[in-house]
Amino acid sequence: MDEAAGRLQQYLEARRETFIRELLEWLAIPSVSVLPEHRSDCNRAAEWIARRMRAAGMQAELVPSGLPGAHPLVLGRYDASPGRPTVLFYGHYDVQPPDPLAEWRTPPFHPSIVGQDVVARGASDNKGQIWALICAARAMIAVDGRLPVNLRVLVEGEEESGGRSVAWMVQRYPERLRANTVWMADGPLFSRQIPALYTGTRGMVYAEIAVRGARTDLHSGMYGGVAPNPLVALAHILSRLRPWIGQVDLPGFYDAVRAPSDEEAAQWKSLPFDEAAFQEEMGVSAMPGEPGFSALERVWARPTFEVHGIRGGFTGDGAKTVIPAIASAKVSMRLVPDQDPRQVAESLRSRVLALCPTGVSAEVSILQADPPVQLPIHHPMLRAGAEALEEAFGREPALARMGRTLPALVAISQGLGIPVVMTGFGLPDDRLHAPNEKFHLPNFQRGILATMAFLRRIGATGQ
Amino acid sequence: MDEAAGRLQQYLEARRETFIRELLEWLAIPSVSVLPEHRSDCNRAAEWIARRMRAAGMQAELVPSGLPGAHPLVLGRYDASPGRPTVLFYGHYDVQPPDPLAEWRTPPFHPSIVGQDVVARGASDNKGQIWALICAARAMIAVDGRLPVNLRVLVEGEEESGGRSVAWMVQRYPERLRANTVWMADGPLFSRQIPALYTGTRGMVYAEIAVRGARTDLHSGMYGGVAPNPLVALAHILSRLRPWIGQVDLPGFYDAVRAPSDEEAAQWKSLPFDEAAFQEEMGVSAMPGEPGFSALERVWARPTFEVHGIRGGFTGDGAKTVIPAIASAKVSMRLVPDQDPRQVAESLRSRVLALCPTGVSAEVSILQADPPVQLPIHHPMLRAGAEALEEAFGREPALARMGRTLPALVAISQGLGIPVVMTGFGLPDDRLHAPNEKFHLPNFQRGILATMAFLRRIGATGQ
Repeated sequence: MDEAAGRLQQYLEARRETFIRELLEWLAIPSVSVLPEHRSDCNRAAEWIARRMRAAGMQAELVPSGLPGAHPLVLGRYDASPGRPTVLFYGHYDVQPPDPLAEWRTPPFHPSIVGQDVVARGASDNKGQIWALICAARAMIAVDGRLPVNLRVLVEGEEESGGRSVAWMVQRYPERLRANTVWMADGPLFSRQIPALYTGTRGMVYAEIAVRGARTDLHSGMYGGVAPNPLVALAHILSRLRPWIGQVDLPGFYDAVRAPSDEEAAQWKSLPFDEAAFQEEMGVSAMPGEPGFSALERVWARPTFEVHGIRGGFTGDGAKTVIPAIASAKVSMRLVPDQDPRQVAESLRSRVLALCPTGVSAEVSILQADPPVQLPIHHPMLRAGAEALEEAFGREPALARMGRTLPALVAISQGLGIPVVMTGFGLPDDRLHAPNEKFHLPNFQRGILATMAFLRRIGATGQ
Repeated sequence: MDEAAGRLQQYLEARRETFIRELLEWLAIPSVSVLPEHRSDCNRAAEWIARRMRAAGMQAELVPSGLPGAHPLVLGRYDASPGRPTVLFYGHYDVQPPDPLAEWRTPPFHPSIVGQDVVARGASDNKGQIWALICAARAMIAVDGRLPVNLRVLVEGEEESGGRSVAWMVQRYPERLRANTVWMADGPLFSRQIPALYTGTRGMVYAEIAVRGARTDLHSGMYGGVAPNPLVALAHILSRLRPWIGQVDLPGFYDAVRAPSDEEAAQWKSLPFDEAAFQEEMGVSAMPGEPGFSALERVWARPTFEVHGIRGGFTGDGAKTVIPAIASAKVSMRLVPDQDPRQVAESLRSRVLALCPTGVSAEVSILQADPPVQLPIHHPMLRAGAEALEEAFGREPALARMGRTLPALVAISQGLGIPVVMTGFGLPDDRLHAPNEKFHLPNFQRGILATMAFLRRIGATGQ
């Protein structure tokens, strides 16, 4: 170990408790972006991280989003020297709502240390992880006197609420985010031991299918058997779109689907993934859907159609016999390269109209349409990321994909056109979006080390 | 006109305003049986009608139901002489909730006279109608000094809340309800001009079909495409049970269905019923369902399967991508003679289990199971009812059926084994269960006349 590395390690040892204590302070702020009553908490959480970034030696400011009702963006900046490469950190300060509250063993916004975990809403998603990035930069500035790269930091407040302020920022002020690469940690390792370098995310078209029948709600005693029932019509439409076993029944849906590269396919086959254990974890006896693919392939590289909720009629307790005038289904399709969300949305619309039975009318509203993202896995920046992860975690990272959709990633990767190194320091069982969310503190330390290793590597390419 | 009839008419003329003013007083009591906060209002409404019955010269008392949480029954009694026939009046003092409040043009519990209508929640269903029965008895007692029959009155407070206190009463104190016939008015005329003598009601099995998939709600980004989705499973099950065009797909469902008698069938064909106008009233362009039957036949004499609501997942605003662990559908089947609700429930249960796809499990809970009722249309009591209606309305009544299910009617007609003369004084557009419910005051007067005519006719059979 060289002298500089030794000093850094000493510094991290000495500050370990401080970093955690400060994280707990941040986690205590209930920055739930989707709930209007937490608007000022979101602002406080943004102010908190900006203050910490300034204390670490960066410039930092809150940028009000130009979109109505949006939460502010936190922008950070550290200029090492114009000749150096620039790295952009991305993360978010907002968190999911804590419901169902009754299932938390400790209060979601009174962060607790339980064993080696910190337990709180947002512990892993994403405050703990972006905090590791900030702490890494802070340590290097403190110990080395400077960073080996120019740094830009973007911490947004709408990741959990479908906000579009990152896209707005990319459009409006691209120069403030311009960088040679992006380093982001917002997800889990591939497994407890194996870190992940994410090579892509699925896109998504989220739609609402509304079916209208009679002019008003009707009593099934007086109209049952003759009135067209929009809930029944939806059952027919949805069951046609989504066979229980088989492919999604949308014309052209699979035409643009690109198979994973041989390299990715080989990697996935070699990953230790136990389908039986996966089923057991879900608590199910079968995985219906598209046959002919492994579970990993289906989650990472195959498009899907899911139903999320059906509104209309009566869903309270007891027996009310209404035939609703209108009913609607929330559905989404996850997309993979090279599916085009606009084409998929169009295909859904025309297919629903074609499937709509007599006596009712259907309408499709598109609520969200984001393309899939394929990251350039052979780009030197991604290779540097892989090496940094291996250095910190002691294992070569798995080339994994994410089944999720990250609109901010779309905006950054496609809007700015720069290679994104996407990883994560969480564990697969961190209970994101669920009660008792946690973050494993040893991974917090490894995340700091991985980030420092990445910045060093990128800095070295510019020397 | 004989002298007695003249005196009665004079009395009714003189009391017209009083009867209406008193009805408004009753309508002002928000006796919403389904809402616990209106419990004391239900009691007040029961006390009110008992007091009026006593003022009219009957005995009347509140009988606490033996069922938990139930509202009291009002029992009235007038003994003319032991040799006379006994008539039982049935009605209910409870009303539907007034929602949606914003759509009322006048407040639901500040009764208003608009033109020839009284507008208020409960005006037609059922306070206005049972009040016509009570006023008829009151007039005869006042003018003739006595009723031509012995009278029993049952005014319940749970018709709108699925309560079972009438069945409890029939079981527990059948002797207090024993009568030669029942006279009840809880529905509309067949049309504006033609009164109705109802010859039957449909039965109903109301069930909840619950489907379970994974142990917990899952994120469709991470599990979409592999996790079994209970909402999709429900769509498959429901679309199989209920073809859009065709018969309900339950084994044996139609086996016990009895065709209407030739007399009823001929009567229905002769009734002025315009299917195009009916569709237009609903605001639909087609009436999918079982082919080969007229709309009247389908609503009155054919069994149905309807879906009333689907619970599970996310139905709020925006785009949440949950795959619910559990989803459920509220469904009902309307039954006609001679279908057996227990057999239908059993058939539904086994069919749902058979249709339940791999990877999920299904469960069927029966919330309600009431048999259809066929009234004895040739019984002298029903013939007396038809004559009384013709006398009051100037038109022979249509032999109609009700598509609805009336548990109290099942309890009375089958539990006591006495012929029920079921009619109604409302208009088809009285907006029952909807905002701006109304009752046409000329029909209130005709209802009083019809009731007096009926009591006279029944009294004459016993002389």
